[in-house]
Parts: sequence; C-alpha cells; structure tokens
Amino acid sequence: MELIGERINGMFKDIREAVLKKDPGPVEYWARLQTEKGASYLDINTGPSVPQDEQPYVMEWLVKVVQSVSPLPCCLDSTSCEAIEAGLKVHKGRAMINSTTADQFKMDIFFPMAVRYGAKIIGLTLSEQGVPKDSGARTALAMELVVNADMHGLPMEDLYIDPLVLPANVAQDHGPEVIEAIRQVKMLADPPPKTVIGLSNVSQRCADRQLLNRIYLVMCMAAGLDSCICDVSDSLLVDAAAAARVLLNKDIYCDAFLKTFRRF
Amino acid sequence: MELIGERINGMFKDIREAVLKKDPGPVEYWARLQTEKGASYLDINTGPSVPQDEQPYVMEWLVKVVQSVSPLPCCLDSTSCEAIEAGLKVHKGRAMINSTTADQFKMDIFFPMAVRYGAKIIGLTLSEQGVPKDSGARTALAMELVVNADMHGLPMEDLYIDPLVLPANVAQDHGPEVIEAIRQVKMLADPPPKTVIGLSNVSQRCADRQLLNRIYLVMCMAAGLDSCICDVSDSLLVDAAAAARVLLNKDIYCDAFLKTFRRF
Repeated sequence: MELIGERINGMFKDIREAVLKKDPGPVEYWARLQTEKGASYLDINTGPSVPQDEQPYVMEWLVKVVQSVSPLPCCLDSTSCEAIEAGLKVHKGRAMINSTTADQFKMDIFFPMAVRYGAKIIGLTLSEQGVPKDSGARTALAMELVVNADMHGLPMEDLYIDPLVLPANVAQDHGPEVIEAIRQVKMLADPPPKTVIGLSNVSQRCADRQLLNRIYLVMCMAAGLDSCICDVSDSLLVDAAAAARVLLNKDIYCDAFLKTFRRF
Repeated sequence: MELIGERINGMFKDIREAVLKKDPGPVEYWARLQTEKGASYLDINTGPSVPQDEQPYVMEWLVKVVQSVSPLPCCLDSTSCEAIEAGLKVHKGRAMINSTTADQFKMDIFFPMAVRYGAKIIGLTLSEQGVPKDSGARTALAMELVVNADMHGLPMEDLYIDPLVLPANVAQDHGPEVIEAIRQVKMLADPPPKTVIGLSNVSQRCADRQLLNRIYLVMCMAAGLDSCICDVSDSLLVDAAAAARVLLNKDIYCDAFLKTFRRF
C-alpha cells in the first residue's frame, strides 16, 4: 500500500504562507514528518493562490526544499503542465505526475512527458463532459487512459487510475460507485493499472471525518486499491491500512503487524 | 445491518457459571446491555460444558430468561437439533436458527424446522468434507443451501449464508476468500440470500483484536455482508459499521450518523 502524504499543499494555511514568504520551514517540517510516518510519496501542490505564471518556479522551489530533507519521491500535483515539467526537471529519482484527465489533448501532453522523465502518472476518470455518474462511466474513462498510456509506451504499472472520490454529504451515491470502479479497473489489463484515490475528499465538511476516511480507505483496499493520497500523520488511518493488509493476506500476519507496516 | 450480540455463550466464564448455577443474573445483564447497544438479535449458546442431554433444557431456560428482559428475537446457537427445537418452542417472535451445515441430513432436519416455526436460519458453507479452501468452494456449498432452502419453501431472505471466517494468524489466506464468497453469494439468486459471519473468529488469539474485527467487518460490508455475530458492546465496532453504511449509501448521511445508526 503506497500512502501519498497530502500535507504539502497550498490549500493549507501554513504552506500557503510559506510559499508566499519563500520560507522553507513549514515545508521541511511536513516533509520530515510525513516521511517518518511512513509515506511512500509526498504530494506537492502550490495551491490556488499562486498565479499561473509563477507556478513553475514555486513547484521547482518546493521540490528542492522537500528533497533536501526527505529521500522520498514527490507526487507533482498541478493542473499546469509547465509547473509539472518544472518540477520533473529538478526532481531526483522517479516522480509521480498528478495528474492527467482522460481528455485527448491532456493525455497527448502528459503521457509523453511521463515517459520522457521516467515518471509515474495519475490518470483521473474525468473528462470535459464532467464527473462520471457511475462505476461504468468511470471504468470507460479508465479504459481511455489505459489505451493511451499503452500507446505511448508507459508501463502499465506506472499508470495510477483515480476514479474520483466525492464528499459523502453531497454525493453519497458516488461512494459505492467508486469502490466498484476500483474493482473493475483492476480487471482492465494484465498486468492491471494501479489505482489511487484522494481519500480526504470523501469526508469534506462531514462529521467524524477521520472515521469516514479510514473506513472508506479499507473498503476501497478490499476492492483492489493500491495507493492513496491521504493524511499520513493520522495514526488511526495508518493502523487501519495495516490491519486491512493483513486481513487481505497482502502482508504476513505477525503480532507486531502495526509496527511492521510502518517500516515499509 | 443486523448485529447479532455474541455474548450469551457458555464459552464465556460468567455465562458458563450462570448456566451451571441456574443464576439468571449474568444472562439478564448481557441481554439488557446488548439490547441497549443496538443488537438486532441475541445469540444464545449453552456452551461446550453442558452435557448433550441437558442442552434442550438449558436452551429453553436461556431463551426464557433473555426474553423476560429484552424484546429482541434470539439466535439459537447449537449443533443439537433437540436444543434448537426446545428453544424454538418457547421463543416469542421469529427466532433465528444457528445453524445448519450444507450436509443433506442436516438440511433435511433444519430447513423443515425453520419453516414449521417461521424461523430464519443460518446455513454454514461447511460439509463433512471439512472447511472449503477458497471462495468458489464456499459458493458451491452456498448454492446447495440455497437450492435446499428453496425446495422446502423457506423465503430466500430468511436464509443467512455464513461463509466461515477463520483466524487471520492461522488461516490468513481465507480472509480474502471469505470476502469474495460474500460477493458471489449475493449473486446466487434474486432476491439473494442474506449473508452473515461470526466476526470475532477472524482475530482469535491475534494482537489488536478489536481493530482487526472492525476492519474486517467493513470490508465484508463493502462486498455485501448483511449481518454479523459480534461483540455489540464494542463501540468502535458499531461506529465503524455506521460509517460503512453511510459510505455505501445504505443510510442517508447526516452529521449525527453515529447516533442515528444506533436507533435502528
């Protein structure tokens, strides 16, 4: 299970201010903390307050700050292809691109970029037609992503399909549809693409957010979820993932399974 | 989600002693407590220390004591058909029989008994050949149960298929097989049979038992689990079930979803 730490994102106030002041402190803090907590990747998002033309420089700065204190690869999170490429240029090791949609013009930019830089890439089951209504529509868009990734020579295990999690309090019917989409996506190719979700979205503005997050995570894992952008500093969430791995027979049971999970 | 309280079972010391001394105190205590905690049924098991020929009388006594303090129906848990029938004779409302195996001689006794008393019944995916190795073998035995129940005129929604949960520390490979069996069983008939598991078995002699229990429960719920024999006094378990119901779009989201779940 790959946990992608969500915290270095300009949506959070401390990161937004750090970006504005070019203060590396908060960025370094969260890079170190998420690394200790067992993240496999660190998501990096400049946030909405950075003007479009400055995003490449901010992304470059964030990648450098993060990789100065953490050995982890970054998940470069932006809708701007210039910002993504600026990050890729300075990134050490294999980055992850977050993300392309299933729109042809986006796939034609991002898949060659992923191949060129040896990066992994998240593909959203989203197109200009909007958010898919059910699991079937999500899987159809996933198939577009699979076919285009394959056409560009991207190894299938480097493609991460994200079936778009929506908040339970406004789009509750999407909850089971995303779980079913994960199951279907894992049957699209052999080897199959990986699957990933932006977990915290499921509980936006909900009561008992952390409970909803961890219960949704393990239900998605039972359907074949490989990876998850989440709050890795939430210990109960990481414990839930460790328990799910044991119960799904993915990690061997031992009495110290909670500690063991954190070491990988 | 129907939660079947597991606690009135002679495997527990206080109940074993209560049975030996014919002391209704502990039985009444657990009947009341599990009722308050939101159980839908109360499982009643005389335990292994009661001799075979006394089991009918003990079962009868337990049912009477339980129903004197709780409005809930009982889940009569015994391998002795005499004990089950003794319980059915004095039970008020619709009891649940726990359980028949998929062996023909057992089904020929218990399905007619269920129909005669208007009881629901749990069918184990178990035969004299032993515990099934995988989900397919479990589903094949479930089909035997479905066909025989139907032949005897049992309404399909009164049949609860139990795919046999085994402890994660000795039979870890069975964990995902049981989840897959639940998914397959829900596709066996229309309307489908119900599904049930004996949850606590998954964590027998394991570390972090309650964590394993609640994570396994919600993963099974995502596959279609309808019901569960469990420790209903475990509040974190009940919270997990409530969260899963909301995320699977089975109960409407509201900020008080934890409280709301307990009222049903």
